[in-house]
Amino acid sequence: MAEERKISMAVIRRLPRYYRYLGELLEKGVDKISSSQLSERMNVTASQIRQDLNNFGGFGQQGYGYNVDYLHKEISKILGLDQNYKMIIVGVGNLGQALANYNSFEKRGFKLEGLFDVNPRLIGMSIRGLEVQDIDKMEIFVKENNIDIAILTLPRIRVKPVAENLASWGIKGLWNFSAVDLKLPETVQVENVHLSHSLMTLAYKIKDSKEEQ
Amino acid sequence: MAEERKISMAVIRRLPRYYRYLGELLEKGVDKISSSQLSERMNVTASQIRQDLNNFGGFGQQGYGYNVDYLHKEISKILGLDQNYKMIIVGVGNLGQALANYNSFEKRGFKLEGLFDVNPRLIGMSIRGLEVQDIDKMEIFVKENNIDIAILTLPRIRVKPVAENLASWGIKGLWNFSAVDLKLPETVQVENVHLSHSLMTLAYKIKDSKEEQ
Repeated sequence: MAEERKISMAVIRRLPRYYRYLGELLEKGVDKISSSQLSERMNVTASQIRQDLNNFGGFGQQGYGYNVDYLHKEISKILGLDQNYKMIIVGVGNLGQALANYNSFEKRGFKLEGLFDVNPRLIGMSIRGLEVQDIDKMEIFVKENNIDIAILTLPRIRVKPVAENLASWGIKGLWNFSAVDLKLPETVQVENVHLSHSLMTLAYKIKDSKEEQ
Repeated sequence: MAEERKISMAVIRRLPRYYRYLGELLEKGVDKISSSQLSERMNVTASQIRQDLNNFGGFGQQGYGYNVDYLHKEISKILGLDQNYKMIIVGVGNLGQALANYNSFEKRGFKLEGLFDVNPRLIGMSIRGLEVQDIDKMEIFVKENNIDIAILTLPRIRVKPVAENLASWGIKGLWNFSAVDLKLPETVQVENVHLSHSLMTLAYKIKDSKEEQ
């Protein structure tokens, strides 16, 4: 059971990986696993795993290990994956189209409901059965369909006003792919994907490994 | 000067954001900034900023603040952005095409040199002046052109053997967009972008904020 204690974001950010591994084990028909087996698979120390999972209390049993299905379900609840989320994509350029074509999000309850752009050449285009709509129609759409999440894949310069509008229309979460840090009311949660930051981190790792040689 | 002390990855992962902010300040002609001003802009505590930047020793001067240009350059060196990297994209589906169309990577020294795919419908297609090549030609290309980084945007099931080949051909870094954790020799550095993990984290934040209301 998820306890009401505050869990650090560092732990939370590791949970999707546990969730994914446990899901893969379930698919293979594995019903229990020890922290040391999980450790070997995930390349994380067994002690880290026990510490992380102890945050949620009592999942493992000494000498038995973890019940894979139970743990998978509990992590799913903790992450809020036992609910469904309605999403729209704002900005249907290359990246927006790439994300629109992912079907793995839907399996986890993230349902794509709408696509919006300002570009007349994109409006009317259809991706996986959804037609790209004019961004002018977004306000009514978001309100009428109770959209939870907007994926922001639009040019950096356009992000701020769009995000502020979406926040005022009651959206709950923004998945932001632009290199802009948004300051918004607390009613809206933001998760940033800064691709260039990740690439710079890779550069650091390469440089760092050379220095060690 | 970058000291030879080992800096934690948590600090390293914050550096690209400093780098980006400082770059924006430079563009605006700002030549010095205090940690409290930087703090307000970046939404990070001033003490965190001082702590982070102290890792590299002596950038700030009491009562003067940080020299923006100097700090920007130093962070660039620490991250290894004072060098150039030759990249290829392996898997030119939607996401691969999106990344191929980014030109902001190039400005930071990450130069795209080749595109590879197995799909005959994609081979021969041209993106920003680069022709998609048959993956069979990748080994010679990587070796002859001393490619540093491969961006892996290919289906999950194909990633492992491709990554192992690239590692054996002397590639230095893999930027991996598939939900597969790679175990490779220490000569190759891996940076994962797990988009679904990020989306799950957003779900958690939404759930968590609801519980607090």
